[in-house]
Amino acid sequence: MLHLFLYNWDVRSKWFDWCENLSFEQLTAERIGGVGSILQTLFHIVDVEHSWIRAMKGEKDLILDYESMKSLTYIRQHSEACQPEIYEFLQTWTDEQEEDLVDPHWLEGTYRKGEILRHVIAHEIHHMGQLSVWARELGREPISANYIDR
Amino acid sequence: MLHLFLYNWDVRSKWFDWCENLSFEQLTAERIGGVGSILQTLFHIVDVEHSWIRAMKGEKDLILDYESMKSLTYIRQHSEACQPEIYEFLQTWTDEQEEDLVDPHWLEGTYRKGEILRHVIAHEIHHMGQLSVWARELGREPISANYIDR
Repeated sequence: MLHLFLYNWDVRSKWFDWCENLSFEQLTAERIGGVGSILQTLFHIVDVEHSWIRAMKGEKDLILDYESMKSLTYIRQHSEACQPEIYEFLQTWTDEQEEDLVDPHWLEGTYRKGEILRHVIAHEIHHMGQLSVWARELGREPISANYIDR
Repeated sequence: MLHLFLYNWDVRSKWFDWCENLSFEQLTAERIGGVGSILQTLFHIVDVEHSWIRAMKGEKDLILDYESMKSLTYIRQHSEACQPEIYEFLQTWTDEQEEDLVDPHWLEGTYRKGEILRHVIAHEIHHMGQLSVWARELGREPISANYIDR
């Protein structure tokens, strides 16, 4: 599992760099599909990943407000601040935890830890695919999603 | 690894169903980003997955021509025909194979089996993210990418 998280973080970091060349208007412009803008997509993937990891650790969700964090710098800082905690969690991961049940509170039902990790991994890759279309619509080359040759 | 392949195949199958409601013109229309059209994206993910699995098995790549397979029915049939072979391969997968080297011949260099499997998984999810934007551009609801609640 750790490999795919590290892949996602590498791709995410390159998208953050890529975003440095866009204006705030381009970053926040309403786009078709996904959660609606490039910046909100980045906020969303960081927030969803962190919320699920905290739920698996039995910790309370941090309620973050996109409107008050609407800055590439803030979102990147938050992303990087969350990673050590997530990395630590993943390093202690063993397949025996696969079926452990988690109640995230902010979502109805209980979920198995294994499926949560796969959900978080797929969630980010999916949204990055959306960014790649928006990048081309802006006439720019997207960040490569290749896992090999990174 | 098997879990994420099964997830991809479930998402793919739902996209194939979804495509039944589009005209051939909508399926093959040139779109911005990715490999250029909805149908060619589906062809591409099936082809890439099968090619890598065959490479890992030391088998020769099947060279498929998109232009002569440009039909939703053909591509879906091919996708479903490949899955038993891939499933069998994945069922025999053990973490000890992670570092085994593979030379795919159609690409320069050698690659480790573990990274190939993760590449194939991420590859499909990424392209499905692109489909989701094109679906919204067509005014249609995309197939959910959620891993949980499937």
